[in-house]
Amino acid sequence: MLEQVYVTGVGMTKFGTLDQSITEIAKSAALEAIHDSNALDAKFDFVVVGSQNPDEFTGVGHLSTLMADRLGLVPAGAARVETGPSAGSSAFEEAVALVKSGLAELVLVVGVEKMSSIDRGAASKIIAKMISIESEARLGGTPAALAAIVARRYMHDYGLSRDELSLIPVKAHKNGVKNPLAQFQNETSVEKVNTARMVADPLTLYDCSPTSDGAASAVVSSLKAAKALGRIDDSVKVLGVGHSTDYHAIQHRLSLTSLGATVSAAKKAFKMTRVKPEDIDVCELHDAFSILELIDIEDVGLAKPGHAIDAVREGETEVNGRIPVNTTGGLKARGHPTGATGVAQIRDIVLQLRGKAPIGLQVKDPEFGLTHNIGGFGNNIVVSIFGRS
Amino acid sequence: MLEQVYVTGVGMTKFGTLDQSITEIAKSAALEAIHDSNALDAKFDFVVVGSQNPDEFTGVGHLSTLMADRLGLVPAGAARVETGPSAGSSAFEEAVALVKSGLAELVLVVGVEKMSSIDRGAASKIIAKMISIESEARLGGTPAALAAIVARRYMHDYGLSRDELSLIPVKAHKNGVKNPLAQFQNETSVEKVNTARMVADPLTLYDCSPTSDGAASAVVSSLKAAKALGRIDDSVKVLGVGHSTDYHAIQHRLSLTSLGATVSAAKKAFKMTRVKPEDIDVCELHDAFSILELIDIEDVGLAKPGHAIDAVREGETEVNGRIPVNTTGGLKARGHPTGATGVAQIRDIVLQLRGKAPIGLQVKDPEFGLTHNIGGFGNNIVVSIFGRS
Repeated sequence: MLEQVYVTGVGMTKFGTLDQSITEIAKSAALEAIHDSNALDAKFDFVVVGSQNPDEFTGVGHLSTLMADRLGLVPAGAARVETGPSAGSSAFEEAVALVKSGLAELVLVVGVEKMSSIDRGAASKIIAKMISIESEARLGGTPAALAAIVARRYMHDYGLSRDELSLIPVKAHKNGVKNPLAQFQNETSVEKVNTARMVADPLTLYDCSPTSDGAASAVVSSLKAAKALGRIDDSVKVLGVGHSTDYHAIQHRLSLTSLGATVSAAKKAFKMTRVKPEDIDVCELHDAFSILELIDIEDVGLAKPGHAIDAVREGETEVNGRIPVNTTGGLKARGHPTGATGVAQIRDIVLQLRGKAPIGLQVKDPEFGLTHNIGGFGNNIVVSIFGRS
Repeated sequence: MLEQVYVTGVGMTKFGTLDQSITEIAKSAALEAIHDSNALDAKFDFVVVGSQNPDEFTGVGHLSTLMADRLGLVPAGAARVETGPSAGSSAFEEAVALVKSGLAELVLVVGVEKMSSIDRGAASKIIAKMISIESEARLGGTPAALAAIVARRYMHDYGLSRDELSLIPVKAHKNGVKNPLAQFQNETSVEKVNTARMVADPLTLYDCSPTSDGAASAVVSSLKAAKALGRIDDSVKVLGVGHSTDYHAIQHRLSLTSLGATVSAAKKAFKMTRVKPEDIDVCELHDAFSILELIDIEDVGLAKPGHAIDAVREGETEVNGRIPVNTTGGLKARGHPTGATGVAQIRDIVLQLRGKAPIGLQVKDPEFGLTHNIGGFGNNIVVSIFGRS
């Protein structure tokens, strides 16, 4: 259904702790995507910025309008889209809707967050606003605490061991080493993960993605605009985008070991395409906590409930495996500047489908890719499916 | 081009200082729009929330996801769109794009702001983030100060007098008295406007819209969904939506007495339709400051530069005039809960096109209506055009 929408170019900054301002970070990724699209002289119709909370993380507001000015894209329309850490994918979704509807031909998407300007405690309070105030945050709940509850339940229900769970961050760091833009460039081991500082029992520091600064960008275009840019051959098709919510507090949901919003969003996205989960050749799944990667694999339909770990143990989720997951390090090793993550996932899938992933991370000849991006603790999720042009 | 997108129902709370929480205010307007659409049992695909800064005005974050939960619309997709005080129109624009693209059939739009929870000084700081930090806010600039500069220039260039400018708030209050949801329910006079407390010379308190709490809501649907709801007859067609930015700081713009983003957005919106400015029968223009109503009238193409005041003086912008402007009181008298304003404008135009405006405010048999919503001080503007079903 969406076969006439293309990603013509992508860009990304290094993720980590960055010195530049949020607008400078965003500009850097955006200019790379514009350049990659051969669109330095093109007329953009719209700029969509995905950012969780630039106002409170950095003091800078009205960010989308500011970016249109800073990038020289006036009088393009501009808007910021916010859905917590799935903001990047939600911004991408608006761009796809604008192009597919004919309201725009060429749209710049920028996902950005700068989380290091304020202290950790203040940042944690901002992040806690995306979980339920009444049922969770008020009682001291944090995303990590909720992830720990989910991990405990999953271990109980499916017999997952601590050593098995540690395979997830080990793979993330192994891939991150080969991704020059990843925040963490060091390998780790099952023992190191197991014995790291406890964050929320059973999750240690290595089970949790970091707070980060960074930006990623993608240019979304119509077939006509992609042709005009001379970029059809290196563009990637947007095949489907699904977006779903779930009840705000985890206690109101049907299951602790499955995210209903992932199941629903994946269903919506696949329904727009002729692609099935088994056709996906490479995917980026939202591993804000290690346990989520296993749950994501199952919820998007790549393994049966409780069996994702079998695929992991057998190396199937490695770069050269049957269904490579988070080849560029995932949120854990690539880093997690919240509003940037969804666009970074899209950027990495676009590079994979072009055959231009970093050395050692390229999956063999992928045809279809998938991104999965979580906002809140599973209450706002976007799944997108891409195909080689 | 957009002829297959409909507004099937609308809702709005009273504007003013409200006791309820931001989620309760938003819920109240949303439930009215859902009820008005005969959609209490319908499956919504998406919720788009337009809000400038709920996080800093109220402490409540992740608002779109929260609204999907509170309204029982899970697993609908949800996103918040933010472009300063044009957030409501930008949210509406995303809904239109989602429906027109086929990504959604039925979308709830909620515009909301609660600005009274924090003190005036803190609120002013939040609002000042939408103008240029480097060139304006840092030097003590505020939106009112910029409006005063613009008013002085306009008076100098076109010979507008203080008495003439005062006709704008006088009309706003005259209409507001008849709008039961308006914040101000009292008439005023040229003398009262002229002699009220000075805010930024030459603008007095009556030249400035207030800070407000409130919400408005609209249901956007495909033709198919509107038919399924049995609402085609009372629906309004969305004919065009144009969205443009301008340079962030007013010193970088081509003119002080015209907002380039209005001219550009209006051009984009009219281009999607067969409607011309002279076909518009009723409009809601963003009169955050009195001088802007005159400039808006000219920029959307309803009068020549410098001549809007002629239409005002001759009564043409009154409810029974040739081109009624802000029949429900405008931002000045209806109130200006920033993220809600754009959706309130749409709600009021929908009621006009249905022939259901409040007693004494109904324009005679209007066929086409227009809304114009400003974010920043003219740097992010949305113009939408509507037609009777």
